[in-house]
Amino acid sequence: MKRSQRVGAICQILTESPGKIFSLSYFCEKFSAAKSSISEDISAAKEAVRIAGYGYIETIPGASGGVKYVTDISPEKAKEVQENLCTLLQEESRILGGGFLYTSDIMYNPDIVKGMAQIFAKKFRDAGADYVATIETKGIPVAFMTAQLLNIPVIVIRRETKISEGATVSINYFPGSSERLQKMSISKRAAAPGSKVLIIDDFMRGGGSIKGLVEIFSEVDISIVGIGVAIVNIEPEKKKVQNYFPIVHLGEVDETAKSVEVIPNCQIF
Amino acid sequence: MKRSQRVGAICQILTESPGKIFSLSYFCEKFSAAKSSISEDISAAKEAVRIAGYGYIETIPGASGGVKYVTDISPEKAKEVQENLCTLLQEESRILGGGFLYTSDIMYNPDIVKGMAQIFAKKFRDAGADYVATIETKGIPVAFMTAQLLNIPVIVIRRETKISEGATVSINYFPGSSERLQKMSISKRAAAPGSKVLIIDDFMRGGGSIKGLVEIFSEVDISIVGIGVAIVNIEPEKKKVQNYFPIVHLGEVDETAKSVEVIPNCQIF
Repeated sequence: MKRSQRVGAICQILTESPGKIFSLSYFCEKFSAAKSSISEDISAAKEAVRIAGYGYIETIPGASGGVKYVTDISPEKAKEVQENLCTLLQEESRILGGGFLYTSDIMYNPDIVKGMAQIFAKKFRDAGADYVATIETKGIPVAFMTAQLLNIPVIVIRRETKISEGATVSINYFPGSSERLQKMSISKRAAAPGSKVLIIDDFMRGGGSIKGLVEIFSEVDISIVGIGVAIVNIEPEKKKVQNYFPIVHLGEVDETAKSVEVIPNCQIF
Repeated sequence: MKRSQRVGAICQILTESPGKIFSLSYFCEKFSAAKSSISEDISAAKEAVRIAGYGYIETIPGASGGVKYVTDISPEKAKEVQENLCTLLQEESRILGGGFLYTSDIMYNPDIVKGMAQIFAKKFRDAGADYVATIETKGIPVAFMTAQLLNIPVIVIRRETKISEGATVSINYFPGSSERLQKMSISKRAAAPGSKVLIIDDFMRGGGSIKGLVEIFSEVDISIVGIGVAIVNIEPEKKKVQNYFPIVHLGEVDETAKSVEVIPNCQIF
């Protein structure tokens, strides 16, 4: 095997499993190569990954050490993701009645979702989360992809209690958009007390649903280490939660003029 | 830039965007290198990816051609995914009342979901699907990851009509597990008539929900090109849909003996 092939294979293996630690011996065995060769290969792989611009390879020292791929996004690429999201949200055809926007195609598109997840993964990679948490439904893809990049599982809070969730803890809450009481429930098996979660969602208006998430996690002794929301409505100014991180802010949706105001979060990193 | 670094970077760039075509000129520009060098780099990258064992690099000829990364899974790795799933499903602690199993941790774990998605993506990569479709909630991650590997978007069928979905088409259906009539709805904006969808879901017992999906898609002139289900219950033998592709079959869940019967689909590829 040539060096270039080994370097290519190392880059690919690490990229396929972000956050997963691979020992040097793993590569020595896979490529039947000496440790010294693999060390040099990894140096080249680090440079290759730096040039590609999606993340970096980190060396973890010690007996259980090795190398892992950490996903990253440059400020320029993050800005592109934001601008693309703004352009998409401003399409006339998304405007529904009552100031609502159709966003399912955005939230279910792997390419777009990946860009948003890279922003969240970078922002919260040192937050120490054991899980990414979201409430069904539209935020699941971005939550799941963020979780994949951080190499941790997802918890999905359901709105209805399902038999397949086992014993659950439920709360009632007021979502921002209406004054109708709603319910959310978490399986008692979802996470051990003392765990830390990063909340990721697709949209927030008043913050009622996310406040509900904060409450339900507090009921099961799970702490919140961060809140990331793809689109945050500017109104109401006073939200039910603080310290959330938006990718873009959604302003006025004018049905008559067919215009949508969207402002990127300029303090992204 | 050294060849090994370029090869590493090419491997990584292609892996980050499965199914996306990159022209040779893209790499020439990115690395300030001649076409002949990039051609050789790509040959080395092909070999590197083959050795890594996650997929292969395909060359698309013609003016709009280039190279793309196609995700793949070897029969041996697919078997490992199946066996791991069997082992997990047989854990005593998953047994809930009424023969139900707790599977959320499996369906929300990126590592496990990726293996299942690789199997589905390989099985259905030539089916010509424009979308992967699923019904909320637990199948969303595996559907979404399959879609990512196939480089197509997801459609999520909702159980309740939401204002943010715009105009919807709804049907009533009988899920297999109870005789209580249920509702599902699809946004009219989700996909154009004439589109083709691949249905991916986490679990099937009688096939009622998936039959519902088939019906709702027929209402909006969308055709089904395949059905993949991670876990299919053996009982009832007679399902409401045919031609589905399971990863594993779930047999008897014995609450007293604390045993779970799981059989891998032996005709996987």
